Amino acid sequence: MRTDFTATRALFDIPEGVIYLDGNSLGPLPRAVPARVAKAMTAEWGQMLITAWNRAGWMGLPERLGDRIGRLIGAEPGTVTLGDTLSIKVFQAVSAALAARPERRVILTDSGNFPTDLYIAQGLADLLAAGHELRIVAPEEVEAAIDESIAVTMLTEVDYRTGRKHDMKALTARAHVAGALAFWDLAHSAGALPVDLAGAGADFAAGCTYKYLNAGPGAPAFLYVAPRHAETARPALCGWLGHEAPFAFEPGYRPAPGTQRMRVGTPPVLQLAALEAALDVWEGVEMADVRAQSLMLADRFIAAVEAICPDLRLVTPRDPAQRGSQASFAHPQGYAIMQALIAEGVIGDFRAPDILRFGFTPLYLGADEVDRAAAILADILKTGRWDRPDFHARARVT
Amino acid sequence: MRTDFTATRALFDIPEGVIYLDGNSLGPLPRAVPARVAKAMTAEWGQMLITAWNRAGWMGLPERLGDRIGRLIGAEPGTVTLGDTLSIKVFQAVSAALAARPERRVILTDSGNFPTDLYIAQGLADLLAAGHELRIVAPEEVEAAIDESIAVTMLTEVDYRTGRKHDMKALTARAHVAGALAFWDLAHSAGALPVDLAGAGADFAAGCTYKYLNAGPGAPAFLYVAPRHAETARPALCGWLGHEAPFAFEPGYRPAPGTQRMRVGTPPVLQLAALEAALDVWEGVEMADVRAQSLMLADRFIAAVEAICPDLRLVTPRDPAQRGSQASFAHPQGYAIMQALIAEGVIGDFRAPDILRFGFTPLYLGADEVDRAAAILADILKTGRWDRPDFHARARVT
Repeated sequence: MRTDFTATRALFDIPEGVIYLDGNSLGPLPRAVPARVAKAMTAEWGQMLITAWNRAGWMGLPERLGDRIGRLIGAEPGTVTLGDTLSIKVFQAVSAALAARPERRVILTDSGNFPTDLYIAQGLADLLAAGHELRIVAPEEVEAAIDESIAVTMLTEVDYRTGRKHDMKALTARAHVAGALAFWDLAHSAGALPVDLAGAGADFAAGCTYKYLNAGPGAPAFLYVAPRHAETARPALCGWLGHEAPFAFEPGYRPAPGTQRMRVGTPPVLQLAALEAALDVWEGVEMADVRAQSLMLADRFIAAVEAICPDLRLVTPRDPAQRGSQASFAHPQGYAIMQALIAEGVIGDFRAPDILRFGFTPLYLGADEVDRAAAILADILKTGRWDRPDFHARARVT
Repeated sequence: MRTDFTATRALFDIPEGVIYLDGNSLGPLPRAVPARVAKAMTAEWGQMLITAWNRAGWMGLPERLGDRIGRLIGAEPGTVTLGDTLSIKVFQAVSAALAARPERRVILTDSGNFPTDLYIAQGLADLLAAGHELRIVAPEEVEAAIDESIAVTMLTEVDYRTGRKHDMKALTARAHVAGALAFWDLAHSAGALPVDLAGAGADFAAGCTYKYLNAGPGAPAFLYVAPRHAETARPALCGWLGHEAPFAFEPGYRPAPGTQRMRVGTPPVLQLAALEAALDVWEGVEMADVRAQSLMLADRFIAAVEAICPDLRLVTPRDPAQRGSQASFAHPQGYAIMQALIAEGVIGDFRAPDILRFGFTPLYLGADEVDRAAAILADILKTGRWDRPDFHARARVT
């Protein structure tokens, strides 16, 4: 192990007394972020005003940071851009894939996919009004469902509820054998486990930067386009910053070279500044170490919970090869139990209908915290102190 | 005049020695922004972590701030949401308009529209592949071109280059007589002059918040949907945060009530926090006063420049009713002249092929600065000190 997790832990600002097991929803604040964003506001925006687009290098941020993310997900240089939200990038990627397979009409996905991917794809199919079908199968049926009717497989590598992980390389190869393209949603992969987009032969991929990349609430999404598609991909959302010469203000659209055509509007500079500082955390970090440590922490938690919380049922696969970096347990009162946990400083989250979800992020989480979280969870269950009206009240929106 | 512009000037942080005539491209930093964004980072994200979505009210930011912007543009409460970029919101608005006029195939716009609107609309037409046409006429020909073939008029109220202003009320009425819908891009209107969307009967409108609303680089866009369309409008980009129950994680999309269906992905919280503080500047400000003062400043600048810079040709209409809050002059060497101006602290911008553009924003700009800017411009022209290799070099991206 070459990564010093004690050192990375010191790079985060986590409140005293909190055990944070929800970095899979919103990563915590890296200590370097506030100063970097403050600089973007006062020294750049405040002092340079409009000239900061050039002088502070704002215009190039999406590609510069895209390359830094690319190194974490096995993407070739120049293939990743940043901006918008993951939903928007799913729209662009699936649209580009459909345009590249004009004779096919099926988008294949699975029922474990995050709903926004399903909504966006169905919305795209409705918009196209050309008879496209969003075909939803069970996760374990995906491989068998890939046939020559499929234009694109739209899969999230790690299931947001169960943590089940697809075999990206095998399913991509299967898609290609059938003549389909493969789009991968890396929301629960980027920064969580080794991803090798180029090695897997993925055609398109996208993900968010506010989970394991710790770039803050509403941080921009990233989009990967394989080099073999980059010069022909249809952007669908043809914004001026995806134009080959945005400042020529031509009346007609000409796509920029490569992945840059997938840029749409003005980049969110403050959010990108936060991302820039958040990515510094990854200097010297080996993703293989993150993965090994994450599995160790999750295994430790699963073992403890199963030993002392018999009412919780593990819904995450036990085989490390088949899961991401979270552990999820089902319980009919999962919602109230999670509220009780949060009230006692153990922050995980709840996913309908009955899932308690815990993320294991070794950059800032240690084994002792995992042990304490399991002990508190067991005590909450044993004493029944989750059974309070305020813990049952569904006021939360997340 | 009820607005105290000396007081509003004190709310901005503008560098010593700079005369800022480019608030129509990027508004300057309101002094309250850094502290508000710092709070969002440290006290909210840092301390509350994921729970800030509820406890800090992040989830409701798009509608809360949308209502505050709504008051500046004559929108009914609950009709404005925030997020994404203006390009994305143009896509949604035009798409919704086309869906509401399924028997028509023409999007009417003018050649003075900002290119991203043209690109996005053409991209949408190409995507739909149903024979839609983006019809581009000269700005003065728009009214006559509105006939019963038109599904939607897509117009920017104020021309980004010339400052020419369309008559929103008259053209909207004309569109409605022809059975078309009217979409208005308010990029150079919101915060610059009185807008009365409800009074004009606009169907859809969108704009950005980084120009006259001073919310910073990459600040989110806003989208208005008239109440009569709100319950039927097609979002096109069907993201989970436009779902009626995002946290039910249902497999199928059901649009949220009203304008909220136009939300797509996770809101950019740091940028929204900046916007929140930037909107405080508008407390006690009357838009009629802003308009009167802006016209006074622009007239003063135009008169001075025409008196002492005979080589510059005004391309902005002289009639106040026909222009926004900028003054634009053409000169064959406009690019180099603007670089020389910027080097001497007078920041305007250049728009191809030959336009020097100056914005007049009374919230932070006074008459003495306007006089000085004109004098510096005259001196630069008289001495020819714009004619330096570095001022001719087209390195700038904005």
